[in-house]
Amino acid sequence: MRCVKCKKEAYTSIKAPKAGFCAEHFLEYFLRQVERAITKFKMFSPQEPVLAAVSGGKDSLALWDALLLLGYKAEGLHIDLGLGKYSQASKQLCCQFAANRGVKLYIFSFLQTYSLSITEIARRTRRPPCSVCGVVKRHLINTLARQTGYRTVATGHNLDDEAATLMGNLLSWQEGYLARQHPHLPAKDSSFPARVKPLVRLEESEIRAYCQLRNLNFYENRCPLAKGASSSAYKHALNMLEEEMPGTKRRFLFGFWEKEQKRFSLPAWPELKNCQICGNLTTADVCLCCRLMQKAGLDPLMPLQFEIVSPADGAQPQAVQTAYCQEPR
Amino acid sequence: MRCVKCKKEAYTSIKAPKAGFCAEHFLEYFLRQVERAITKFKMFSPQEPVLAAVSGGKDSLALWDALLLLGYKAEGLHIDLGLGKYSQASKQLCCQFAANRGVKLYIFSFLQTYSLSITEIARRTRRPPCSVCGVVKRHLINTLARQTGYRTVATGHNLDDEAATLMGNLLSWQEGYLARQHPHLPAKDSSFPARVKPLVRLEESEIRAYCQLRNLNFYENRCPLAKGASSSAYKHALNMLEEEMPGTKRRFLFGFWEKEQKRFSLPAWPELKNCQICGNLTTADVCLCCRLMQKAGLDPLMPLQFEIVSPADGAQPQAVQTAYCQEPR
Repeated sequence: MRCVKCKKEAYTSIKAPKAGFCAEHFLEYFLRQVERAITKFKMFSPQEPVLAAVSGGKDSLALWDALLLLGYKAEGLHIDLGLGKYSQASKQLCCQFAANRGVKLYIFSFLQTYSLSITEIARRTRRPPCSVCGVVKRHLINTLARQTGYRTVATGHNLDDEAATLMGNLLSWQEGYLARQHPHLPAKDSSFPARVKPLVRLEESEIRAYCQLRNLNFYENRCPLAKGASSSAYKHALNMLEEEMPGTKRRFLFGFWEKEQKRFSLPAWPELKNCQICGNLTTADVCLCCRLMQKAGLDPLMPLQFEIVSPADGAQPQAVQTAYCQEPR
Repeated sequence: MRCVKCKKEAYTSIKAPKAGFCAEHFLEYFLRQVERAITKFKMFSPQEPVLAAVSGGKDSLALWDALLLLGYKAEGLHIDLGLGKYSQASKQLCCQFAANRGVKLYIFSFLQTYSLSITEIARRTRRPPCSVCGVVKRHLINTLARQTGYRTVATGHNLDDEAATLMGNLLSWQEGYLARQHPHLPAKDSSFPARVKPLVRLEESEIRAYCQLRNLNFYENRCPLAKGASSSAYKHALNMLEEEMPGTKRRFLFGFWEKEQKRFSLPAWPELKNCQICGNLTTADVCLCCRLMQKAGLDPLMPLQFEIVSPADGAQPQAVQTAYCQEPR
């Protein structure tokens, strides 16, 4: 196969539309897809600083790398879930990336602040780990973004992630989620920064090829808690259909955002009020995160310790600063 | 496993909700599902005669059998596509069924009327066989139903068929099809009889168990033209998800009809007019079936020959009558 642009031998290829790319033009293609997502969904302007939520996996490190290559001011935030080897390795890869690029990385550690891993917190709340992790991480990300002045948080969700979520929401007709699922959730007053997904036009296989091309060290294994997650089943089903009918995922996801999502707008959005404990916006008297913390026997207002790996540290990542943040009552 | 009703040893089981049934109570369960679909979607009353479109496969013969068991007046219509052994065997099984039950069966043969199989007609029109077959069969079914005074045609579409169709329509956001897909499409003036799908609450595996229990001889192989049909891919994907999350297909399909389909109602239905050739209702000047016939070099107004296997024939099926029908201009 040859590069569709320069006819050199292809470095990699995409399936829908079928096209080969040499290394140079694949990079160009990839970055253009990121840029198009940012522009099309009005995610942020070139001047706006962005906080990239990085797990150490391929998607989030590719995201951070692409944002920097495109000239955006992007710092990182890593949450260390306290899951043994998986967490240690993931954190180290994020630190390496930050040190190599000379960019700032914020690190929050569950063990450091709560003396508990996410597994233990989930066990105490008797809820599935992925559900607890999602709620608590969202709270932590919002809190740190606010404390450090970020109005936009970017995550590495890709086309496969979003198509799988959409399929799950349609199969059980989750009207609220269908109304809300979007690559750009705008900021809500001062408590919630905007959430954006600049990789939404790129498939997992394309991101993998990008990581290889850019020589990115990422942690290959999935989170040990995510085994058997229903999103895997949806992805598997979609990939099977994509194999038979190339373009299915893209048509499905972008068709939804372009034409169909408006059908699912909720008749009335629930009224938001301030959580009686942490003050964050919520639909209940006490937000879900504070309720989970209480159920786990933790103080929802406990100071959250963040380490910061700053560009001044040089190649060796080390904790040089600790930030405390507490929500106003 | 034991029968959920009488605790006898189970003859078969269903997965969502998980339950075992002895032979007697499985039959009761199955017929109740058919009856519920008929009632819930207001398909037809016990007095109304119904024309069952039968291919000779498990679904349509189970449908015909269940309708007769429930006391409905159901006669059959079989369309012989002229596909060699597949068509011969299918037709014979339909004839056997009709003769055993002493019920009337109408048979239309492509070779007899057109001297061409559906494959040859499709080849001449340069369209996929399944698409041509769908259009022409619909025309034939409507025509015979009208000629014989039937206002309702029942087909054997089951839960798997409908869930797969829904998934396909959602993946490519076929708004018109999403608005129309329903187990009961009401009759439209005198040209179109109502189309109903009484097996829509039953899964393929349940229908298979019913056929075994009722000792129904059906043709096991699929239509030779349907190989690689996208509906198979959707069914496969849905069955994979059902395996991991039992109840997925049912929740998906009935959730759609109960709450969500209204979101897809078309802003304006296209205006229907009479086909300039056959007089049937259509959105174009000449209906698609007449256009296909012309493209295949056939006269759209050719008299359609039907054989009738009547209860008077006894055990041996034989052609005893020929009906001609021609659409008014």
